[in-house]
Amino acid sequence: MQRRTLLALSGALAGSTLAAPAIAQSSKTLTMVTSWPKGLPGLQLSAERLAKRVTDSSGGALKIEVAAAGEMVEAFEVFEAVSARVADIYHSVDYYRVKESPAYGFFGAVPFGLTADEMTAWIHYGGGQEVWDALGAESDIKPLLAGNTGIQMGGWFAREMTSIESYKGLRYRMPGLGGEVLTELGATVVGVPGGKINNALSTGAIDAAEWVGPWLDVKLGIHEAVPYYYYPGIHEPGTALAIGINKSVWEGLGGAEQSLIAGAAVAENNLSLAEFNANNARALGQIIADGKVELRRFDDETLAALLRVSNEILADRSTADAHTKDVYASFVAFRETQSAWTEVADRAYLNARGLG
Amino acid sequence: MQRRTLLALSGALAGSTLAAPAIAQSSKTLTMVTSWPKGLPGLQLSAERLAKRVTDSSGGALKIEVAAAGEMVEAFEVFEAVSARVADIYHSVDYYRVKESPAYGFFGAVPFGLTADEMTAWIHYGGGQEVWDALGAESDIKPLLAGNTGIQMGGWFAREMTSIESYKGLRYRMPGLGGEVLTELGATVVGVPGGKINNALSTGAIDAAEWVGPWLDVKLGIHEAVPYYYYPGIHEPGTALAIGINKSVWEGLGGAEQSLIAGAAVAENNLSLAEFNANNARALGQIIADGKVELRRFDDETLAALLRVSNEILADRSTADAHTKDVYASFVAFRETQSAWTEVADRAYLNARGLG
Repeated sequence: MQRRTLLALSGALAGSTLAAPAIAQSSKTLTMVTSWPKGLPGLQLSAERLAKRVTDSSGGALKIEVAAAGEMVEAFEVFEAVSARVADIYHSVDYYRVKESPAYGFFGAVPFGLTADEMTAWIHYGGGQEVWDALGAESDIKPLLAGNTGIQMGGWFAREMTSIESYKGLRYRMPGLGGEVLTELGATVVGVPGGKINNALSTGAIDAAEWVGPWLDVKLGIHEAVPYYYYPGIHEPGTALAIGINKSVWEGLGGAEQSLIAGAAVAENNLSLAEFNANNARALGQIIADGKVELRRFDDETLAALLRVSNEILADRSTADAHTKDVYASFVAFRETQSAWTEVADRAYLNARGLG
Repeated sequence: MQRRTLLALSGALAGSTLAAPAIAQSSKTLTMVTSWPKGLPGLQLSAERLAKRVTDSSGGALKIEVAAAGEMVEAFEVFEAVSARVADIYHSVDYYRVKESPAYGFFGAVPFGLTADEMTAWIHYGGGQEVWDALGAESDIKPLLAGNTGIQMGGWFAREMTSIESYKGLRYRMPGLGGEVLTELGATVVGVPGGKINNALSTGAIDAAEWVGPWLDVKLGIHEAVPYYYYPGIHEPGTALAIGINKSVWEGLGGAEQSLIAGAAVAENNLSLAEFNANNARALGQIIADGKVELRRFDDETLAALLRVSNEILADRSTADAHTKDVYASFVAFRETQSAWTEVADRAYLNARGLG
């Protein structure tokens, strides 16, 4: 986004959302810009639910008005817009800022990283919020955890993946660090916007693609393009949605207003995951019942190779800058301690329940 | 609790917390009674955090004052106290009401039941709230999900569990349906209050005991009594904490007040699990580092037997009354669909991460 555009927008909005002194008004309105298309379930509707809770819980004294991607600023310009106080709050995923610093990736999702529950534990009870605050402060943003997609699927494939060799030459749509892991295994990683995945697979322009999970994948119709649906996804094991609030706006809020927004973010972090889980389960059940898709698990040799390469790439990126060093150190130490508990708790329980 | 005591308490309190018309006051105060000892981390402090969020987010206009077990009513009298409007809200686990109807068990935890994430999905996006509301209405209570301990441990044992035969004659401290499962396998189930577990194990009065998980188990000192710590716990795979609000009180609240309380309950549902997970991980790490405890996994034959018996006992209880029939039907259908997703998502991912 151009600075001139931001300034023009800023001027146009000054009379409405940023009118001073806001504190003298009986009702205060904050503007939230998002990275999501209007009406998109799970993401845009999660942002709107968060905004509605703040508005409802304050009896309308603190309103949050939500603008979808393109309505006020473009999808990936939300960070700069909030940093420059063109808007008050963004709702997005922080890994879209990864070109500014690899540190941002850890607050979205990284390959073989934290599950949704582990991410929440890291941020609130494991020192994650402190390193995130330090990173956000660089662009005058106060970040808060505000949702999670849960574990994503491995993706849709035109042909079977029989071994680690199957990645050689595979034209695979996967963004971010996950794409870099696949490149290391010999895949040709290509960028395809979500809305064009179906067509790219159907025409054979690409061989494989990941999107999110059954709920949103089916909405794009990907299940009609190719027959093989692989699990588990290891590239995004619990993608965190975030809100970021302009730091001056945040610090100018009263204690009750901060509590309302922080509480609504925590609540939505819980509801968003629950909504993804419930709808993914229903969509997966429908896909299986339809009988046209082959659900396959990656073999252990492939998964072990993905794990090794993922950890190598994360370690390689960890020294990019001072923030990344701090965030990586916090993340790696937390993951080691926490995953030892997840092993004896969640993993061991789910394996036991699977014996039936 | 005796009805006479309740009425006496009710009279004594009428002038303070239930003063009418509350709506004319600038500040409204609701009383919350809990089943937890004063100061108990994870449970009493979770109730207090929920109350503080409502108070803070309303700028003090809606206050919740919390009374620990015994301060106003005894631990297990909180349900009757709220039903009779002696207090406005309880914070507890609904399975403590299981003698009134087995249906309540499903909103706490049942053997081989839902994980914390699945419970949240069931309540908010799987029809769980509707059957819970119908059950709560029987005693004029509006129930809300408000926390989760996460997956509990299998327990502490004086000797090794080498096979399913090891349960024969084992004197095991485990309450509820989990205890009934163990009885079926030949164990002698005994009731021992939490604070006396350590002594009962040390003196050999019992052979085994479960409490919660590393964080709270270590606080009781159980790790100093016997050497074997088994996982996974299958009796409580995600114990749900709940608040219940007197239905007349709930319906008398304004929309903003309802939104504040419901939002704080969802937020605390998220934070409580994160707090248990982070602290369980640290405590487990310390136990392992100390080197005095043997961490052991139950063998698959034992787990498969526990699974079979658990499902038999649940099915057996499912016809006890009309509410239990409804709740069981909703629970079983949800668990089937949801666990198929958990298999390809959480379980498959955690197994892949465990390959390292």
